[in-house]
Amino acid sequence: MNDTRTDREPVPAEQREREEQVTRQVLASFDGCADPRLREIMRSLVGHLHAFVRDVRLTEDEWAKGIEFLTRTGHLTDDRRQEFILLSDVLGASMQTVAVNNAAYGDATEATVFGPFFVEDSPEIAQGGDLAFGAAGEPCWVEGTVTDDAGEPVAGARIEVWEADEDGFYDTQYGDDRTAARAHLFSDSEGRYRFWGLTPTPYPIPHDGPVGGLLAATGRSPMRASHLHFMVSAPARRTLVTHIFVRGDELLDRDSVFGVKESLVKDFVAQPPDAPTPDGRDLGGRSWSRVRFDIVLAPDGT
Amino acid sequence: MNDTRTDREPVPAEQREREEQVTRQVLASFDGCADPRLREIMRSLVGHLHAFVRDVRLTEDEWAKGIEFLTRTGHLTDDRRQEFILLSDVLGASMQTVAVNNAAYGDATEATVFGPFFVEDSPEIAQGGDLAFGAAGEPCWVEGTVTDDAGEPVAGARIEVWEADEDGFYDTQYGDDRTAARAHLFSDSEGRYRFWGLTPTPYPIPHDGPVGGLLAATGRSPMRASHLHFMVSAPARRTLVTHIFVRGDELLDRDSVFGVKESLVKDFVAQPPDAPTPDGRDLGGRSWSRVRFDIVLAPDGT
Ligand SMILES: [Fe+2]
Ligand SMILES: [Fe+2]
Repeated sequence: MNDTRTDREPVPAEQREREEQVTRQVLASFDGCADPRLREIMRSLVGHLHAFVRDVRLTEDEWAKGIEFLTRTGHLTDDRRQEFILLSDVLGASMQTVAVNNAAYGDATEATVFGPFFVEDSPEIAQGGDLAFGAAGEPCWVEGTVTDDAGEPVAGARIEVWEADEDGFYDTQYGDDRTAARAHLFSDSEGRYRFWGLTPTPYPIPHDGPVGGLLAATGRSPMRASHLHFMVSAPARRTLVTHIFVRGDELLDRDSVFGVKESLVKDFVAQPPDAPTPDGRDLGGRSWSRVRFDIVLAPDGT
Repeated sequence: MNDTRTDREPVPAEQREREEQVTRQVLASFDGCADPRLREIMRSLVGHLHAFVRDVRLTEDEWAKGIEFLTRTGHLTDDRRQEFILLSDVLGASMQTVAVNNAAYGDATEATVFGPFFVEDSPEIAQGGDLAFGAAGEPCWVEGTVTDDAGEPVAGARIEVWEADEDGFYDTQYGDDRTAARAHLFSDSEGRYRFWGLTPTPYPIPHDGPVGGLLAATGRSPMRASHLHFMVSAPARRTLVTHIFVRGDELLDRDSVFGVKESLVKDFVAQPPDAPTPDGRDLGGRSWSRVRFDIVLAPDGT
């Protein structure tokens, strides 16, 4: 066993052949797999995993550290905390998967990372409703349209929105059963939507676990650029999972999960406390902001 | 989102470029990593992980299944059950790591997979002692020498041995605190060793969890070829982690963790009940077997 590797020498051909022989043997073990898609996935996974071990000349100590890291990641994961999704996110595997599955299609709105904080069965709000449900933060008027790639309105699109509060926490992180800063609504007959949300603020991904340790060890920040999550679905349309980001946010170029795309950066326009609200709502003298986000859905199957 | 992929078309150059751009961005995020070895490992891991996602065009459903698989693997892992090591073993990542870290060196005995069943602080036995400690199985006389690569005896080498009982279980799998079928002893002044073990029998790796599910889904067997584990260490020598296998075992060519090497297959010679034992031990009329395993240790740092 060899615990450290410095000033590496080239691997002799005979040794290289012995190592590649191991890979061939493992690849052949999937020959009897009846599901061709599973066989393809397992063969590719094994090929890349073995190449990684060979390329870095992984030591047995490092292998053991990897096992230990995965073990801690598994033990921290439960119904509220999904440390494996965080791991996929900070390694960019989530965004690579998003890229593979959401090819550019005309003017269709770009997708970004799903993240670990979506919850099924969010409350429904009416047009103009407020998703805060008690979450703290500056009110933000969000409005736009949902159209198809030909510019035709998509009526009745289901729009899920969720975000962190001004302290940087999602409702699920509080450890009680609150539901806040999340809701869904439907676009109207002309494809329009509007609601009150919260002006997004930056927050760190949960970083008290193994993924946080990895970020610290590699000199990376856990901070995410300020954003508001959307998931928009409609019949015959590709479901869009995305965010909008805040123009001017200094974290745009170093988002910890690589979610930022220029087309998703929007003008959140600050409004003074005395500015009249679009729906006449009385905000009790608080400042607020407003943003427009027009959503274009690609056809399903693209 | 696209849930199934059949008759795949080639990826257009523009789309490919968008996907590779994600990878470049993630690689650059490690530029500030102060530990050059960690930076190298993370960059290689990210490169291979992203290439896997791209090569198989991983769907978002498949990504979610992967997250769920890792979550179940983590939840099953505890002090007694190491499902991540099993996963590494059945994917051949363990044997690839063994191959990288144990280059051939003259006549040095070949290494194989460590496995999840080693326990620190095994009982010490004297030369000729019995490691069974009540474990069921046919007695097996094991003897040999420990030498260096020049053929000189290595005195005082620490020899750890462990194995499954005749029902295919290691002591740690019984869920009580028994210690059985494991021990350590030291080579004598002429490098010799001898002990009573159990004739190895085939057993399945634990297959009631996610790794077992993966094997079943891919048409692979969980069975391991019959073997006896060794770990041999001595000052200035590369620690040897290996097994010996039983010549004639029909599982030799389809060991579930790819641990078999021809040089490690040994003749376990069956002995009739009335054959005199090497040390005069009375086996009460039972049959027994004997095997010779001469161990050659490479120098440390090779
Ligand atoms: Fe978020
Ligand atoms: Fe074993």
